[in-house]
Amino acid sequence: MQEALLVLNKYWTEHGCLVVQPMNTEVGAGTLNPSTFLRVQGPEPWRVAYVEPSVRPDDSRYGENPNRLQTHTQYQVILKPEPGRAQELFLGSLQALGIDTAAHDIRFVEDNWASPALGAWGLGWEVWLDGLEITQFTYFQQAGGITLDPVSVEITYGMERILMALQDVSHFKDLQYAPGVTYGEAFGQAEYEMSRYYLDEADLDTQRTLFEAYAGEARRMLDARLPVPAYSYVLKCSHTFNVLDARGAISTTERARSFARMRGLAHEVAALWVARREELGFPLGGGPDTAADATVAGESAGAEQDAAATAPELPAESGRATLALEIGVEEMPPAEVTRASQAVHDALAEKLAATRLGHGAISVAAGPRRVVATVADVEPRESDYEQTLKGPRLSAAYDADGNPTKAAVGFARSQGADPADLGRVVVGANEHVALTRQVVGRSAEEVLSALLAEVVSGLRAEKNMRWNAPRLSFTRPIRWITALLGERVVPFTVSSLTSGRTTQVHRNAVPAVVEVPTADGYLSFLKEHGILADAAERRRLVVDGATRLASSVGGRIQVEQYGALIDEITNLVEFPTPILGSFDAKYLLLPADILVTVMRKHQRYLPVVDAEGTMLPYFVAVANGSCDHDVVRRGNEAVLRARYEDASFFWKADLETPLTEMKEKIRLLTFEERLGSMADRADRISAVTRRLADVVGVRGTDREVLDRAAALTKFDLGSQMVTELSSLAGVMAREYAVRAGESEAVAQALFENELPRFGGDQLPGTLPGALLALADRLDLLVGLLAIGAEPTGSSDPFGLRRSALGVVNILLSRSELAGLGLSRALAIAAEQQAVTVEPKSLDTAAQFVLRRLEQQLIEGGHATTDVRAVLVRADSPLLAVHTLEELESLQGDDRFARVLAAFQRVRRIVPAGVEAAYDPDQLKEPAEQALHSALTKCRQVLDGETSLVRLTAETGELVDAVNVFFDDVLVMAEDPAVRANRLGLLAAVRDLAEGVVDWEKLG
Amino acid sequence: MQEALLVLNKYWTEHGCLVVQPMNTEVGAGTLNPSTFLRVQGPEPWRVAYVEPSVRPDDSRYGENPNRLQTHTQYQVILKPEPGRAQELFLGSLQALGIDTAAHDIRFVEDNWASPALGAWGLGWEVWLDGLEITQFTYFQQAGGITLDPVSVEITYGMERILMALQDVSHFKDLQYAPGVTYGEAFGQAEYEMSRYYLDEADLDTQRTLFEAYAGEARRMLDARLPVPAYSYVLKCSHTFNVLDARGAISTTERARSFARMRGLAHEVAALWVARREELGFPLGGGPDTAADATVAGESAGAEQDAAATAPELPAESGRATLALEIGVEEMPPAEVTRASQAVHDALAEKLAATRLGHGAISVAAGPRRVVATVADVEPRESDYEQTLKGPRLSAAYDADGNPTKAAVGFARSQGADPADLGRVVVGANEHVALTRQVVGRSAEEVLSALLAEVVSGLRAEKNMRWNAPRLSFTRPIRWITALLGERVVPFTVSSLTSGRTTQVHRNAVPAVVEVPTADGYLSFLKEHGILADAAERRRLVVDGATRLASSVGGRIQVEQYGALIDEITNLVEFPTPILGSFDAKYLLLPADILVTVMRKHQRYLPVVDAEGTMLPYFVAVANGSCDHDVVRRGNEAVLRARYEDASFFWKADLETPLTEMKEKIRLLTFEERLGSMADRADRISAVTRRLADVVGVRGTDREVLDRAAALTKFDLGSQMVTELSSLAGVMAREYAVRAGESEAVAQALFENELPRFGGDQLPGTLPGALLALADRLDLLVGLLAIGAEPTGSSDPFGLRRSALGVVNILLSRSELAGLGLSRALAIAAEQQAVTVEPKSLDTAAQFVLRRLEQQLIEGGHATTDVRAVLVRADSPLLAVHTLEELESLQGDDRFARVLAAFQRVRRIVPAGVEAAYDPDQLKEPAEQALHSALTKCRQVLDGETSLVRLTAETGELVDAVNVFFDDVLVMAEDPAVRANRLGLLAAVRDLAEGVVDWEKLG
Repeated sequence: MQEALLVLNKYWTEHGCLVVQPMNTEVGAGTLNPSTFLRVQGPEPWRVAYVEPSVRPDDSRYGENPNRLQTHTQYQVILKPEPGRAQELFLGSLQALGIDTAAHDIRFVEDNWASPALGAWGLGWEVWLDGLEITQFTYFQQAGGITLDPVSVEITYGMERILMALQDVSHFKDLQYAPGVTYGEAFGQAEYEMSRYYLDEADLDTQRTLFEAYAGEARRMLDARLPVPAYSYVLKCSHTFNVLDARGAISTTERARSFARMRGLAHEVAALWVARREELGFPLGGGPDTAADATVAGESAGAEQDAAATAPELPAESGRATLALEIGVEEMPPAEVTRASQAVHDALAEKLAATRLGHGAISVAAGPRRVVATVADVEPRESDYEQTLKGPRLSAAYDADGNPTKAAVGFARSQGADPADLGRVVVGANEHVALTRQVVGRSAEEVLSALLAEVVSGLRAEKNMRWNAPRLSFTRPIRWITALLGERVVPFTVSSLTSGRTTQVHRNAVPAVVEVPTADGYLSFLKEHGILADAAERRRLVVDGATRLASSVGGRIQVEQYGALIDEITNLVEFPTPILGSFDAKYLLLPADILVTVMRKHQRYLPVVDAEGTMLPYFVAVANGSCDHDVVRRGNEAVLRARYEDASFFWKADLETPLTEMKEKIRLLTFEERLGSMADRADRISAVTRRLADVVGVRGTDREVLDRAAALTKFDLGSQMVTELSSLAGVMAREYAVRAGESEAVAQALFENELPRFGGDQLPGTLPGALLALADRLDLLVGLLAIGAEPTGSSDPFGLRRSALGVVNILLSRSELAGLGLSRALAIAAEQQAVTVEPKSLDTAAQFVLRRLEQQLIEGGHATTDVRAVLVRADSPLLAVHTLEELESLQGDDRFARVLAAFQRVRRIVPAGVEAAYDPDQLKEPAEQALHSALTKCRQVLDGETSLVRLTAETGELVDAVNVFFDDVLVMAEDPAVRANRLGLLAAVRDLAEGVVDWEKLG
Repeated sequence: MQEALLVLNKYWTEHGCLVVQPMNTEVGAGTLNPSTFLRVQGPEPWRVAYVEPSVRPDDSRYGENPNRLQTHTQYQVILKPEPGRAQELFLGSLQALGIDTAAHDIRFVEDNWASPALGAWGLGWEVWLDGLEITQFTYFQQAGGITLDPVSVEITYGMERILMALQDVSHFKDLQYAPGVTYGEAFGQAEYEMSRYYLDEADLDTQRTLFEAYAGEARRMLDARLPVPAYSYVLKCSHTFNVLDARGAISTTERARSFARMRGLAHEVAALWVARREELGFPLGGGPDTAADATVAGESAGAEQDAAATAPELPAESGRATLALEIGVEEMPPAEVTRASQAVHDALAEKLAATRLGHGAISVAAGPRRVVATVADVEPRESDYEQTLKGPRLSAAYDADGNPTKAAVGFARSQGADPADLGRVVVGANEHVALTRQVVGRSAEEVLSALLAEVVSGLRAEKNMRWNAPRLSFTRPIRWITALLGERVVPFTVSSLTSGRTTQVHRNAVPAVVEVPTADGYLSFLKEHGILADAAERRRLVVDGATRLASSVGGRIQVEQYGALIDEITNLVEFPTPILGSFDAKYLLLPADILVTVMRKHQRYLPVVDAEGTMLPYFVAVANGSCDHDVVRRGNEAVLRARYEDASFFWKADLETPLTEMKEKIRLLTFEERLGSMADRADRISAVTRRLADVVGVRGTDREVLDRAAALTKFDLGSQMVTELSSLAGVMAREYAVRAGESEAVAQALFENELPRFGGDQLPGTLPGALLALADRLDLLVGLLAIGAEPTGSSDPFGLRRSALGVVNILLSRSELAGLGLSRALAIAAEQQAVTVEPKSLDTAAQFVLRRLEQQLIEGGHATTDVRAVLVRADSPLLAVHTLEELESLQGDDRFARVLAAFQRVRRIVPAGVEAAYDPDQLKEPAEQALHSALTKCRQVLDGETSLVRLTAETGELVDAVNVFFDDVLVMAEDPAVRANRLGLLAAVRDLAEGVVDWEKLG
């Protein structure tokens, strides 16, 4: 261990880092050290590296858990501004640690870091070493609620992790800390004793007193304008809070209050620090007087040097040529790979269309580190064309003598033309003088230089970051641009990037940067260098390779079932290298859901199953490019073993815990600040479930099952397994409930409580389960919308959209629930809320659910107009869907067309608000009387029936009467009484079909 | 800086140290880190190295002081058990840091470290680099009040110090912390802000609350048997205490209470830690089951290897030879060099005398690292002699037939002799049978092997330590023993040391260990290797060299005045190398006392003065052995410059501070727990001074001066200068008082208040000064003896002995004080004490002072009997001394002899308690009447006069009458009334001379 820390200190010192000491008060992470939190603020450059023993009271395990310590060792590096090649620097440090980066599978896997308590976030990666997360790598975007400029890179090594892998030991205590001394020998007692303190012994009143004392000092020091001591007290607050939390002593309200207080203090500290540094003239430089941008440019110049050198090469015009544009990016999140590919395609197509440059097919391929677009047969130039410039009106252009006026002369001169050249053009109703000239098309290079720059600078992702390239913003930093038209570079500059002819291939390739000879065969060229830019090709390699490996041990891969995972894997690598690994068969005793979840969620491994779909003790990991398969296999197997060992530990511990005890623990889980703890929420779900059951009329065994399940709802959130693997909520409830002696039905209801968990997931199969699931989602929607937590844009942290869709589909799935109106169900949920639910917000909730139904139906292929027309009945989604089906069955039906026309005609003439009241005796005209008669008959026949089909079938006569009425009668008679009576009659006709569909929408 | 820390980490890692992280709570020193404080406890081996940013709120200077920081960087190394060559390892680390140990003057200067708050102490050194203290080097003896076994070595580097020297910068802010970043740039703001917090802003109530909270948690964790968290809270207590202290908020009682509390907790933590480690089976080894001693032996074996290899060489007998014994020690304190030399001489002489081994002169020389004894002309063997063994009494040895009895036969057989060989011997009044036999003397080698081992193992110093050599105890570790008889090794073993023929010379010599061919010319041999073992020779080199250097710049050295300093220097080096340095003449504006004190106390430099004794801007430093003079000169000059810069800073700051403000500051200085603050003490001194002045009758100007000085007494203890250089107390009072506008007389009195400061120092020259000085010492004596703080053995922390001697000499020095009885003066001081002063303790105080007078007189050459006889009058020391002079003048005077005999005769016969009451009318015998008459006459003549000389002169007739009385009269007459009357008469005679001297003592 100490040797590794020495190596890192040496390495980062050589790369310009200051080495400082750990913070001399307890901190939960290296990020909290003022050398990070304060120094990333403001313009001053800063490079620092340090060890930080990070204290996390909550991770106390008495030293028993092999991977979890109350104090673990972080090694933290900050590079400010981010130097443009931090990933390469980091890989260099791994080599310094003795890690053969060519043999191992080292990957940058999307990870977006955020610390709400610090008001901090950033984008970056977990770095994987053969599947083991060894480092957090983040481009810091905000800290203390302040947007950072310049952006810093934060690299946080997990030293115990790294060394356990390097030393191949499975318990941290067995690590060789120094020659002859293990980690356990050196620190085992402290680990045990501090765990005892944090979990069992710390005095709560004392800790609360400390928290207040620290917060008070922080406040006072802020007022005294001393950010350094203020910050030290914020850190002490934070640690004290963590101690209280580990002791299970933080109530929901306390947590919220404490977090807000710490966040507020941290923000003030950060702001004051910047202000103080500015007063001091930014001693380390980077202030307005110093050339901060120069530094930035200098830093990134290196990476772009050869591109810049080739940029001035001005291409000559020639025949048609292929255009290739490669945008090189640090590892994008898998979803962004697809999105960026599409975006580049669209942007190219659109922008090319706005030029007069002829071209052939556009195709775009993308992988984690690049988007590659090619455009075939690009013309050497735009076509020429004639341009007409409009001058003054003809009448104002020539005087009575036919001589050009001042205006005309001025116009001609302004265009560099002779007044004698002026022609004429008709614009609208007027004739103008005009100049016509031949415009010569621009060269392809000229067009493309501007156009490609716009494509690059216009790139945006769902979540964007800034880096050391002013004005650019994307999912991850763009690092190079290759742009070739045939064999020639298309020269352009975007921010600090200049297009060139080099591309970067695998980081462990030699050389890692290569020159591309020509745009033709760009993808083949990349392929020769081990890069598959085409996602489909990569996917094929994943599927084929995994399947072949699985069959080598008599198994198979569930390609269909794991489609999304395979898509993700496809975009995590540039050249998929499937590797078969195995694990000890003893873990197969764990529920398969656990095994699969660990593989899928944490490791992106594909499970191997037998013909019956039963798990085999194998998995397929997909490495990137070439590596030493045995090394990578062993590494991944070790990671999985550790995770399964953890899971076994949780499984056993949970099985020994009574359900009531688990349920009690959820009292400590905050659901939402204003909505209380998870236990409060469970109580509400339970109450809502039972009220819904009353309304629906659930009785007998179903009712017993429902009551019992409602009492237990959410208990598994208090289990260690779900705490660790939250996606197993419900699954573990079922497992633990059965093992605790609950009935299968109760266990199943508890499982179904969580359904559906994602789009396309199964729905509850039992009535108790359905009601629980419904109540769960209703509570979520009503509560969060009541406090104004509606999702915005892509942000839906509580999954309200998914929940609303769940409500819709649960209601659609069970006919027992047809009579339960959505609004009533929402009202029931509202009654249980501790917060006030305004009628308006209840309406918002209903609308929110309807929008999901609408969207689902439209996405399901139904016509938008039809869908919108039936939404009027969606308080019962089942009825709405039924009506939609009717509507679709009547499509092309003449009768229905007539009915529709008639009702729409009626609705158009009857003003809103006119009641269906008329005096039949006042109806003098035969057409009036005939309509009255037809209406009366229709009413009797339909008797409140609202089926659209019946309505169509039974209103033939009425429709005729309506048509005759309109032909014969002037509705808007001069006599107000007659007019009113006729409108009343028509209103009555209208009301006959009111609410069956939204007639206006069917326009 | 960071490079240096890297180097040290690397170096110590290579030497088997664990490298750990700094403590994650604020600590004042690396010693407090649990890796030291806890790990030095118990038997487990432990080697650790770490950086410790040490937080000392009291050293906060807003980053302005060039040498003082609220957080400075310690580098701490613990080697447990001490490896026997820690000094060499340490020197190796300096080389690793790039310090040329051959060019620089690197010295180990006595420093005894103690932390009462931790219950810890150890012996060792400050390490000097060209006069700059760069490291603390300690053999840890106790921690947490627990005696440590094995002993650890603690090495604490002061990194800022070292690097300022290496980088040759004069302000810590200018240090290059990392390439391109200075210390000030990196940490300047934190230094300023934390200084603000510690000195100005920390909230006192909050800190007190924290202290209580921390202490409470520490207590609880001890009860829970968790020493690790308990200790972390002790550390938090300690830091909080330091914050309060820096804010000037610790009252005397609070300080005492807090210290006691922390010490108590620390002790419990240490004890609990050991107990817990034992329960865990001492995981790092060293427990009773493991071979801890084996490790120890193994470690030290290396150093002694070659000695051991030569040990078996058994010397053959031959003629007379020189014996040489060298005891090699790590650098002894200068005083111990002399003491050890004497002790070895005495031990050798005494032990040789107890043998029959003939030998010549014994001579012993000593330097800091060795005591070298030589004995000339040692005989090859002890002389043979006849031994007579006493058997049974003759009467019991033979039966009536003259045959040996069983007893006689048994005796003979027990001695392996035939009964026929029995002879006779007279013992006392009895005749015994006896056996006589010739005893052959042992060989010199046999005798010396045992004898020299005893000499070595018997060595003790004033303050002793233990190290990794069981059963040895000395001022510093003994590392080698060279013992040669002529050319042959005298083989013996003491603890883990074995005698040999190698010695260690200068550490930077090549080779540093050399073989000694023969005992003859041992000192010459050492001299050839640059070691002057003879102190006189070294002293000569110091004096001559310094004088020569001084005269080269027109100055001289005050050899007489700085005799003690020169003695000290002499014992600090093995080969004195005087080097002349200079300093900026601007510092000569500071009072000379300051300049000299800094040179003498801190640096052991000799000041250079001109013919008039005025200081010149030069000094002489004395380096050890060969070095690069320019390097060493520059280093020492830089150190002195920094110290003078500090002193200038204090001087200026003090001059800007009103005396009253300084005086106010001493309220924060603890004098003694129960006796209050220094301000309390000053108040008492002031009151006592004025009461004494009343008694003595001080009036007029003297009284005014006295009252003013009494009001100001001790104010300079509140100055920064005296805080820094406590030996300048009084001196600075005079300087500052005059500059603050006080009269010269008041200033002088304040200076004299502190006189005498040491044995032989000047006495107060004015009456106000004398009374202040007297009051000062009376208060000290009465107060401390009242609380039972009498000095024990060599421990006299408050200097009570020196104070008592001061009282004596002040009283002796001024006739005005003759009438002021010591007991009265003490009573006056007692009245002012806040603590109760029992009569018994007042008596103890008086006796304590008398003992000092007695000792001084005896040491002054007066006869012990005479001194003891006059002590009866010592309540006035002046009178006692006068009487002593009379007594001595009467020595050999017949009249006095007769007087003495007569009074002693009277005193022998009159029982104690008999009153001088008799009825003259009852005196019937002429001798009785004559005595009565002579006595009556004498009384009239003497009229209460107590001069011994007058008494002798006037009592001739009385003495005759006494002699006649004893000849003629039977005192012990049978008639009780007559007897009583006669005894009464004699008692009256006795009382005439009562109290003049102690007559019995003159026996």
